[in-house]
Amino acid sequence: MSDGLQILPVRGIGDVTAGDDLAELITNAAPWLADGDVLVVTSKIVSKAEGRLVEVPADGPERDEARDRALASETARVVARRGPTTIVQTHHGFVMAAGGIDASNVDKTHLVLLPADPDASARALRAGFAARGRDVAVIVSDTMGRAWRNGLTDVALGAAGIAALRDHRGEIDPYGNELSLTQMAVVDELSAAADLVKGKRDRVPVAVVRGYARPEADDRAGASVLIRDTASDMFSLGTAEARAEGLRDAARLPDAVAGVADQAAVDRALTLVTGVLTPGTGITAGAGTLRLTPAGAGSADLLRLGTDTHRVRVALAAEGVATVLTVDDDGVTLSLGGTA
Amino acid sequence: MSDGLQILPVRGIGDVTAGDDLAELITNAAPWLADGDVLVVTSKIVSKAEGRLVEVPADGPERDEARDRALASETARVVARRGPTTIVQTHHGFVMAAGGIDASNVDKTHLVLLPADPDASARALRAGFAARGRDVAVIVSDTMGRAWRNGLTDVALGAAGIAALRDHRGEIDPYGNELSLTQMAVVDELSAAADLVKGKRDRVPVAVVRGYARPEADDRAGASVLIRDTASDMFSLGTAEARAEGLRDAARLPDAVAGVADQAAVDRALTLVTGVLTPGTGITAGAGTLRLTPAGAGSADLLRLGTDTHRVRVALAAEGVATVLTVDDDGVTLSLGGTA
Repeated sequence: MSDGLQILPVRGIGDVTAGDDLAELITNAAPWLADGDVLVVTSKIVSKAEGRLVEVPADGPERDEARDRALASETARVVARRGPTTIVQTHHGFVMAAGGIDASNVDKTHLVLLPADPDASARALRAGFAARGRDVAVIVSDTMGRAWRNGLTDVALGAAGIAALRDHRGEIDPYGNELSLTQMAVVDELSAAADLVKGKRDRVPVAVVRGYARPEADDRAGASVLIRDTASDMFSLGTAEARAEGLRDAARLPDAVAGVADQAAVDRALTLVTGVLTPGTGITAGAGTLRLTPAGAGSADLLRLGTDTHRVRVALAAEGVATVLTVDDDGVTLSLGGTA
Repeated sequence: MSDGLQILPVRGIGDVTAGDDLAELITNAAPWLADGDVLVVTSKIVSKAEGRLVEVPADGPERDEARDRALASETARVVARRGPTTIVQTHHGFVMAAGGIDASNVDKTHLVLLPADPDASARALRAGFAARGRDVAVIVSDTMGRAWRNGLTDVALGAAGIAALRDHRGEIDPYGNELSLTQMAVVDELSAAADLVKGKRDRVPVAVVRGYARPEADDRAGASVLIRDTASDMFSLGTAEARAEGLRDAARLPDAVAGVADQAAVDRALTLVTGVLTPGTGITAGAGTLRLTPAGAGSADLLRLGTDTHRVRVALAAEGVATVLTVDDDGVTLSLGGTA
């Protein structure tokens, strides 16, 4: 049992203000810091030392307005909104409630923003320790919410001197299977471990992990490799926001056809609109087409056929079937294609 | 520096098979286990001891089919699909790729399912240690992916003898601010910490966290309190899936009005459809209504007005504006209401 890890709190750092030398403060508070240690520093004190503060009124609607302005300036895009909660992607790429802006552990006339470049902050801190003769890895951590799970955990915003991921690809288990769970976000796990000895009230903003065999570091990568790019993120938008986008897509449905429609998809689409089309609207399937005809000869029948047509087109689009619409005096023809 | 935590690997547990007494195996491997320790046990060996295995062919299409059947039986609902990846919510409520089914660290003719009730497994294990005179908390952990962040981390599926959340609500920081980050998922953080000393190749499936001041436990709650209920989850569906639902909503748009329409929302909707409506289609705003008229007197003009009408209705729905459609021989009237 001698080969485990220790997670050690660093106490006595005290209040941090703009311009403070964090490496100096931490070395003084933890003279026992040793080569090979992983230092996990709460982003809050990094932001304070770097002067990443915004002055705001202490209360009233002016405070809310100032807070909204700060959020807007930190926001690259809004991911999801519900009630008072706004989850955004920051300019760094982090997906966080309120863009990581925090009003705790700071006087009431300031808000604390995230460090502008947490990997650069981690590198600078690591260099500061190196200058004092200590070879330590540095992680800049913050608290984040998650999809699907209640409660928050600490994760890494920045890192230096340690690879963010431990890659198990190619490893073979004792049964001869290649491992399928391949890349562990170890800097996030180290941040979580450090939080277990930290105090949320800023009294212990730093912890040291001792005894961890760091994966090979590429200092240029840092923790930013943990940011999933939006295109490959299956959850890049909130459910409600994505659903509203689907409605907007429906409103602006383009006339485009590519590939060949899948009959099962067409059948699912027609089942979907069963019961919402005008009684008497005719639908006849041809070769790669659907022909829609009105319930009667009146103007209202033609108008209704028009709304039915767009319902059918949208239902097909939901199944990935694109359509081209041709209108004549007796009805409409939809040519069916591939991916909408 | 004496008040930190230790994370200790438990080695020498060896192969676990159905019917094994895990408390016995772990006590033998870690005779140094002490009161107050938090034991983090990889769900894989819990599943094996509980016989949660499915027999499958070692290879070929039959193996894939058997795997699909196992996934279907573990799945409560599909959350997102892309390429070979299927993320589902299991019957327990966990959102996991492949429903947590794993083929590693088991012979090629079996798949390992998650424990049927990980909180119950944790309680049973804790009772097993209590019977051997050790008062320890037990966490059953597994590896999960996350939205927005690359890499995996270990989290808690089950827990006993420890509260899953540490609640900071009501605490005041040194500046007099009430803390806003309130509930930390400490059993997830303990699971992540334990993973740092575990081996992915099953050689170290158990770790002990020593020195952690456990939050008050309510044994009935367990780790299941960390499962966010779908209704309050802003990311209950994948973005592509939610967008497709939006399209389906558009196809089945109901005739219903509640509340009063917001003029700004109506304006946004009309801006959205600019350029996709038939040239000449007239839109006139009245009191709580929109009147749409055809570009000309022909049948095709009426049909086109019908499709335009549904585009406008869907654009309004995307902005939360519900509509009731009234058709007459000269055009259509949309009565505008509140939340669609």
